[in-house]
Amino acid sequence: MTWRFALVIQPAGVDDDRRDFSATFRTIDPAEPALSVGELSTQRGDGIFESIGVVDGHPQEVAAHLDRLAHSAEICDLPAPNLEQWRQAVARAAEHGERRGEGVIKLILSRGVEHGPAPTAWVTASAAADFTVPRTQGIRVVTLDRGYASDVPDRAPWLLLGAKTLSYAVNMAAIREAKARGADDAIFVTSDGYVLEAPTASLILKFGDRFTTPAPTGGILRGTTQQSLFDHLREEGYETAEELIPVDLLARADAAWLVSSVRLAAPVTAIDDTRIELDSGLTQAFNRYLLTPRD
Amino acid sequence: MTWRFALVIQPAGVDDDRRDFSATFRTIDPAEPALSVGELSTQRGDGIFESIGVVDGHPQEVAAHLDRLAHSAEICDLPAPNLEQWRQAVARAAEHGERRGEGVIKLILSRGVEHGPAPTAWVTASAAADFTVPRTQGIRVVTLDRGYASDVPDRAPWLLLGAKTLSYAVNMAAIREAKARGADDAIFVTSDGYVLEAPTASLILKFGDRFTTPAPTGGILRGTTQQSLFDHLREEGYETAEELIPVDLLARADAAWLVSSVRLAAPVTAIDDTRIELDSGLTQAFNRYLLTPRD
Repeated sequence: MTWRFALVIQPAGVDDDRRDFSATFRTIDPAEPALSVGELSTQRGDGIFESIGVVDGHPQEVAAHLDRLAHSAEICDLPAPNLEQWRQAVARAAEHGERRGEGVIKLILSRGVEHGPAPTAWVTASAAADFTVPRTQGIRVVTLDRGYASDVPDRAPWLLLGAKTLSYAVNMAAIREAKARGADDAIFVTSDGYVLEAPTASLILKFGDRFTTPAPTGGILRGTTQQSLFDHLREEGYETAEELIPVDLLARADAAWLVSSVRLAAPVTAIDDTRIELDSGLTQAFNRYLLTPRD
Repeated sequence: MTWRFALVIQPAGVDDDRRDFSATFRTIDPAEPALSVGELSTQRGDGIFESIGVVDGHPQEVAAHLDRLAHSAEICDLPAPNLEQWRQAVARAAEHGERRGEGVIKLILSRGVEHGPAPTAWVTASAAADFTVPRTQGIRVVTLDRGYASDVPDRAPWLLLGAKTLSYAVNMAAIREAKARGADDAIFVTSDGYVLEAPTASLILKFGDRFTTPAPTGGILRGTTQQSLFDHLREEGYETAEELIPVDLLARADAAWLVSSVRLAAPVTAIDDTRIELDSGLTQAFNRYLLTPRD
């Protein structure tokens, strides 16, 4: 699959209720220069994003991603996105993709060009990498201190915790640190000993027949894939919970996964020095579900 | 002054000792598209930067800024920049500027295009805004919790504290928060009550004839303007210190300034609800010194 597509969007106001936003889209060559050096996304990481998985031409959980985009915009004092416009942009990107296989559509809303009048926005789409190995053989993770105590997000909203901002240098550094330690990925923990999330994924733990994830308080991004999977698990009769999880509990999990929109469910086989059992049956069921078309 | 200039750089290795790096520079129109949407600077805030003040055609403290660029690159696992190449790029940008007035030259080193082979780099230059009002009438600041305890930077290097990364969304949000509170700027403090720095400036406090700034430990960026000013103050016979400063001490300062490369010395007239005396004589002397050509 060699799908590559990009679209620049002229952001519309939330009150713009036209039926067809095509006139606000401009298709570009994703390899060609498209952004000026004055872009605040590039100078300051000042903007927000979403990554939407695509399966056989179907963009997954679009509404949940757009809701989160709006939530991030609110936290970052960005103009509220016109969600119908973004929905049409996602549909356009998906139409230009392959009918078979997996892909990823990224939405970016930047504060715009420095001293400029308006935000800039664009959508990119491409084939996904092959995640067969992490999905079947699992990943090793290390815990890394995020540096914040668990009460910080609520009292310091300017830290933008809970927004999916373009300022992801720390998230990328955490993954490099994990790899330097011989692992594949990281789990952030608070400085007072509670589990948060992975730099680009949510954590799900299984204890007996109960599935749990760290409660999406201010410091944790609401995981669209985790929420979809928990809805499915409840339908299947399992118990699910969102709660405060002390770091000590990680080593006692019967199974663990990092879940995200594109890699989907990656079973965790080790957390720091503790081996975790890989539950192949459940992992296959998770990814089978996550690879069905979902809205 | 209408100076606007931009240069894309093909980053050279540190071992490249050619005399003339002109062949690695490409002048571009700063308003035209120059970066692809695949840029990791824009997708992840994944890169580093420096802002160099320019006075009457002379770029200030270039060596100190380049040293800090190299330091940031090391913290972020970016390839070490060839400092002679960057020095020549700064000189080229300064040559294209106005001979009179103030400007700013920005250096950006990005991790490059996603899945690409090499970092991307560019330099922009433009006239500075008019900072007469903050320099003469002063600024009101509020203290904002940075969310980290003072021992965090040393034990969590993946938080990239001390590197000047492109992930500045929180710094920008802090300035918005300050303005929402009716102030002009912010001073970050640790969650355990020590003073750090402003989102884009260093803090200098005066107690009697002694000048002090928060010690540049892992959590604080070494301030090139603050260091230059402290060198000057010591030559003038003043005592200077870099130390741990409890938040309580702020209200007892005889005078205070936020200093940075382009706005230079902005006297602080209020910290939260405490009025601070504006020392006009010293402030004028500071800015007179900072506006002389410095290397």
